[in-house]
Amino acid sequence: LKTSEAAELRARLRAVRHTVLVLSGKGGVGKSTFSALLAHGLAADETKQVALLDIDICGPSIPKMMGLEGEQVHQSGSGWSPVYVEENLGVMSVGFLLSSPDDAVIWRGPKKNGLIKQFLRDVDWGEVDYLIVDTPPGTSDEHLSIVQYLSATHIDGAVIVTTPQEVSLQDVRKEINFCRKVKLPIIGVVENMSGFVCPKCKNESQIFPPTTGGAEKMCQNLNVSLLGKVPLDPQIGKSCDRGQSFLAEAPESPATLSYRNIIQSESENHCANESPRFRALLQYAKGLNRLVLLCHK
Amino acid sequence: LKTSEAAELRARLRAVRHTVLVLSGKGGVGKSTFSALLAHGLAADETKQVALLDIDICGPSIPKMMGLEGEQVHQSGSGWSPVYVEENLGVMSVGFLLSSPDDAVIWRGPKKNGLIKQFLRDVDWGEVDYLIVDTPPGTSDEHLSIVQYLSATHIDGAVIVTTPQEVSLQDVRKEINFCRKVKLPIIGVVENMSGFVCPKCKNESQIFPPTTGGAEKMCQNLNVSLLGKVPLDPQIGKSCDRGQSFLAEAPESPATLSYRNIIQSESENHCANESPRFRALLQYAKGLNRLVLLCHK
Repeated sequence: LKTSEAAELRARLRAVRHTVLVLSGKGGVGKSTFSALLAHGLAADETKQVALLDIDICGPSIPKMMGLEGEQVHQSGSGWSPVYVEENLGVMSVGFLLSSPDDAVIWRGPKKNGLIKQFLRDVDWGEVDYLIVDTPPGTSDEHLSIVQYLSATHIDGAVIVTTPQEVSLQDVRKEINFCRKVKLPIIGVVENMSGFVCPKCKNESQIFPPTTGGAEKMCQNLNVSLLGKVPLDPQIGKSCDRGQSFLAEAPESPATLSYRNIIQSESENHCANESPRFRALLQYAKGLNRLVLLCHK
Repeated sequence: LKTSEAAELRARLRAVRHTVLVLSGKGGVGKSTFSALLAHGLAADETKQVALLDIDICGPSIPKMMGLEGEQVHQSGSGWSPVYVEENLGVMSVGFLLSSPDDAVIWRGPKKNGLIKQFLRDVDWGEVDYLIVDTPPGTSDEHLSIVQYLSATHIDGAVIVTTPQEVSLQDVRKEINFCRKVKLPIIGVVENMSGFVCPKCKNESQIFPPTTGGAEKMCQNLNVSLLGKVPLDPQIGKSCDRGQSFLAEAPESPATLSYRNIIQSESENHCANESPRFRALLQYAKGLNRLVLLCHK
């Protein structure tokens, strides 16, 4: 990064208070779903300004999940405007730049990196309390670029999303190694699809069985926090397809209850902990908690 | 591609008869699982030589799924040797070049492309009836490079793997557009995770609900063959983690039966069809069919 570019990025992002990357090794583990819910959760506090940036250039899911499909980015004197879900929740994705949601973005690394830089430098983000960055799977261009570009400012850390089976955990270990190599703090790991409760007989099945102990054992071995486990719920996929928050649509679901448990135990465990990482986590937890409470009103 | 490079690739790959790419828009839909089963299925015919090439550089799952974790590539006078599962089934993956399966490959596009070229040019593939290429999700460097490098020889076509929900289908449409743009024939679409049968009460749940009609409607709309739907089965994840074929371990599973149905209906539908694409498909179907029959012995 040239000095002039770093200065530009710093100037544009100076009013961003907290930044969280949402990572996963493997695709299809619920990364974008988690990013979308986290953004909704934080924005439940109307005094906070939340930004959700989707840097999955070839497979952007965020516009659909946030109910923003078909929206376009507007250009103003101060740059591109994010697309707003609510007044305090702005979203940016390559999806808003395509003429059809089926258009393929057939780009090699340098073009993807160029767009990510534009998303940071040319978007009029304004005052932002939380910038959530949803990433594609892997440890390649997009990940290196976002960490490099945000080094001009500050990243609180990364949340890593996984599913319980070893094939997925193997990729999470790679992602943890990536974080350590680029000195990105790890906020913790979320295990999605942890089990499925049959709606008819209430029997729980492990659809992606944790043959090697799941995220729990991996987190112990690697000394990383497990933020929680969320069971499979068909309502999650339905809500994502409709662009709505499943927590609002299924307050009684075991998945919603799991989210609440994650939040409570995290708050209890880390209340007394003074590290900025855990304070930041507590903020998200509070945000998610607010969301859950809101859903139960 | 320089003329000299194209000539080198052509020379190395001249004894490869059929090449199939396995693609998906979204990650985590079962692409590597399908690639692994297809390779096993084709190799059930001992007179055929099968090669499985994993070009998911940042998230290679094939070594684990094929039970080859910890194996290393050997160098011989005629190039790198693939790792052999059986005498007629050779595998190549970046996983065989790492000192630990948890090592992250933190590479931007050009380095990934360089390795893919090496996998084609420097590996002593020998006589190969079927080369199956497992790809990462998306439409970026790896996809453009493999199509470019293999243009020196011949690609029969692509199988696209998806799950039923719209968020996944949206990415498949991008992948289909990619195939059309680069003139890659589409053999067909496989829908994984099409439903889950509770092992206790046998009630079927749609875990990733087909809110927009699933792969079936998409295939009709886009005039692409649907090769079949495979239900979720926890045994699949377990078998993959153990590096074994789940068809062999669960011959009674609805997923195994679905595979058999895919194969039978495909054979019936396309027997009379003379296009090379369908003749190739018939070959795979026969291969998979042999696998299923083998499992039932």
